[in-house]
Amino acid sequence: MSQNAPQTIDLLIEARWVVPVEPHDVVLEHHAVAVDHDCIVAVLPIAQARTHYAPQERVELGEHVLIPGLINTHTHNPMTLMRGLADDLPLMVWLQQHIWPVEAKVIGPEFVRDGVELAVAEMLRGGTTCANENYFFPDAMGATYRKLGFRAVVGLPVIEFPSAWAKTQDEYFERAGETHDSFRNDALIRTAFAPHAPYTVSDESFERIRVLADQLDIPVHLHLHETAHEVEEERKKSGLRPFQRMQKLGLVNDRLIAVHMTQLTDGEMAACAEAGVSVVHCPESNLKLASGFCPAEKLRKAGVNVAIGTDGCASNNDLDMFGEMRTAALLAKAVAEDAAAFDAGFALRAATINAAKALGLDETIGSIEIGKQADLAAVRLSDLETQPLFHIISQLVYTTGRHQVSDVWIAGKRKLAARELVDMDTAGILARTHAWRERIAAI
Amino acid sequence: MSQNAPQTIDLLIEARWVVPVEPHDVVLEHHAVAVDHDCIVAVLPIAQARTHYAPQERVELGEHVLIPGLINTHTHNPMTLMRGLADDLPLMVWLQQHIWPVEAKVIGPEFVRDGVELAVAEMLRGGTTCANENYFFPDAMGATYRKLGFRAVVGLPVIEFPSAWAKTQDEYFERAGETHDSFRNDALIRTAFAPHAPYTVSDESFERIRVLADQLDIPVHLHLHETAHEVEEERKKSGLRPFQRMQKLGLVNDRLIAVHMTQLTDGEMAACAEAGVSVVHCPESNLKLASGFCPAEKLRKAGVNVAIGTDGCASNNDLDMFGEMRTAALLAKAVAEDAAAFDAGFALRAATINAAKALGLDETIGSIEIGKQADLAAVRLSDLETQPLFHIISQLVYTTGRHQVSDVWIAGKRKLAARELVDMDTAGILARTHAWRERIAAI
Repeated sequence: MSQNAPQTIDLLIEARWVVPVEPHDVVLEHHAVAVDHDCIVAVLPIAQARTHYAPQERVELGEHVLIPGLINTHTHNPMTLMRGLADDLPLMVWLQQHIWPVEAKVIGPEFVRDGVELAVAEMLRGGTTCANENYFFPDAMGATYRKLGFRAVVGLPVIEFPSAWAKTQDEYFERAGETHDSFRNDALIRTAFAPHAPYTVSDESFERIRVLADQLDIPVHLHLHETAHEVEEERKKSGLRPFQRMQKLGLVNDRLIAVHMTQLTDGEMAACAEAGVSVVHCPESNLKLASGFCPAEKLRKAGVNVAIGTDGCASNNDLDMFGEMRTAALLAKAVAEDAAAFDAGFALRAATINAAKALGLDETIGSIEIGKQADLAAVRLSDLETQPLFHIISQLVYTTGRHQVSDVWIAGKRKLAARELVDMDTAGILARTHAWRERIAAI
Repeated sequence: MSQNAPQTIDLLIEARWVVPVEPHDVVLEHHAVAVDHDCIVAVLPIAQARTHYAPQERVELGEHVLIPGLINTHTHNPMTLMRGLADDLPLMVWLQQHIWPVEAKVIGPEFVRDGVELAVAEMLRGGTTCANENYFFPDAMGATYRKLGFRAVVGLPVIEFPSAWAKTQDEYFERAGETHDSFRNDALIRTAFAPHAPYTVSDESFERIRVLADQLDIPVHLHLHETAHEVEEERKKSGLRPFQRMQKLGLVNDRLIAVHMTQLTDGEMAACAEAGVSVVHCPESNLKLASGFCPAEKLRKAGVNVAIGTDGCASNNDLDMFGEMRTAALLAKAVAEDAAAFDAGFALRAATINAAKALGLDETIGSIEIGKQADLAAVRLSDLETQPLFHIISQLVYTTGRHQVSDVWIAGKRKLAARELVDMDTAGILARTHAWRERIAAI
């Protein structure tokens, strides 16, 4: 074989456009992404790719843009089974009279498994390839994600009251350790500590988490400063704002994934930037629960790593990262009183490379770069709703619907092909969802 | 023929659910809507409908909810051809360096016609059946809407500078009169006066509009209090807030369709309620241009008729009324600091019956009631993204994507059938859109 013979690879995806995210704000026209095993091996013009590579499979996407798979940086995916159960209610009525009573009766490995399955189907159909998961039964969640070939960081829950998952503080930590061990070296599943919130977790637990997170080298995924009420209550109790308490406990560092953060002083934003904290902005949940407005543009300007998440389906009510990018970009402008704030390119970063960085996975996913995992989404831009087409990245954020996602790959494996879920039992998922609906509605 | 023989009608639509909007918050299960000629003649259980009626055509929608066609209460639809042309820019840079220079080179009957065609295709595919239109060349706009069988109120523009449409104040009024006359007694097309804004229209013109609007019995469609800057500038100039100036000029009455209204005192809200003013909330445009936050919930509570519009595609960037209902409902909660604010049922009213009322068409459209025009949209709720399904109206507002709209009727005529546009030259529309894209990109 001559040295110029084409190289055999598994997959060549030829796209009208490729937006690699890194480098920033670049749109490559008529480019191909070469994939071998689970990795991206090249990004190059289609013509060149055709002479260089002999792929086992070639996919032509003549009207599509190929982007990195989107990363949902804050979810409670089992709650997808509670989508739309209780809307338009004050926060405490919603929690105490609807969400918690239902959870008390349904939480367990089956609920978690079936909820995650429905969520994975929805996420794949919307171009999302990785979820930062926060719920009970991380063992069942992780097993379901693994079975479905979906990338996830599963949270190891810690909360100061008994649940179906664990009865005592010690049991939360034991089960956390066991769950972490069971996914050690898994190709797709990682873990993070997921202490619920400062108002439900003790100093002692936070101290244990700090030590263990360092030892295990995993992130800490925490609801923080979701509402002004939370900040005020903590101040009354400890004399500190929750963020200050986290600083005191040594948790304000580059492992921290701080979710919501609607209440922030300039000093706290600077401290986040300095310490390498990632902030997850969940604009639709913050709006729907009237939690407050995250100063997303100020955080961006302060140099904080800002990522985006949908939150759970009980407060959103979907796992639509296209919608979430759009809402984030729109809302940040009004909050910053600046129409140039949080531009489309930044919104796309917040849903890809910044999200990967928050999860400690930015060497693995979040952009279309050589050596990274082939987590990819193709988006059809020929629909009349996305015409005319002046700027690809703008169109992705401000105009594209998630139903325009045509194909998705995770670690080089096709998970969605021309809108069809690959190797998933869609009818079974819908049947199980319907059964849960009947059971929940009867509670 | 016995008196119990089934009555012949044109169309019977049998749906899993019907949400008539009037009465409020009602969901009818397994109901049918009977249509004869252009009108709704009955809303009744399917079983009963089958014995009462012998329809020429029967449509079964076993997984769908039938709703009144959505009404987009503020649009600049020719600008659909400028979708995504210039995003993430400060307002004045956007207008002065991008929108206006392009408009100066393209505005004319052809641009208007082709833009409206693209917009109608997009609106129909998204369940919208009526647009309150605000642009130049209302004659060409009205002719295009009429040709396509789409319901519209076309604005008769008045602005204090020369345009391709008219050179002088007198010419604006002459052409307004001619255009109004040409649509007199049209089945689908109505007119409204559309003075641009207080800062671009003189007292003299407003006075002429007040008199003529009364004589012609048509609404006045006006951008008002879009930004704090606008309010402040007027106050410096005349000593009055723009709303006060409109009061002084006699325009604050039940003909007024006041669009945007991000800056409002409690007194102004009470005055709107008292006078019967309709306020059109355009949440996505207000966010994208960082115009400010409309106090939508306060307006609702004050008893003001609140409707929803998308604004033009240069500042949205779509004509998605499902997205706009959702953003309106979400945003209003955070602005009001109340998760129970602006509930899903109200959002649906704002996009249907309230919109009809704003246009003076609430006896004709806006709800599924006997005697009203059969402007209807069917939405498929079986997609896994809308499962589980607990509350139909919540799901419509918080979870449904416009691509789930399957069928649309206007005045009893099917305009969308199983997602396919009926009697529209989609390929031609896309070709013309592409040609405009090339021409605009070259400016």
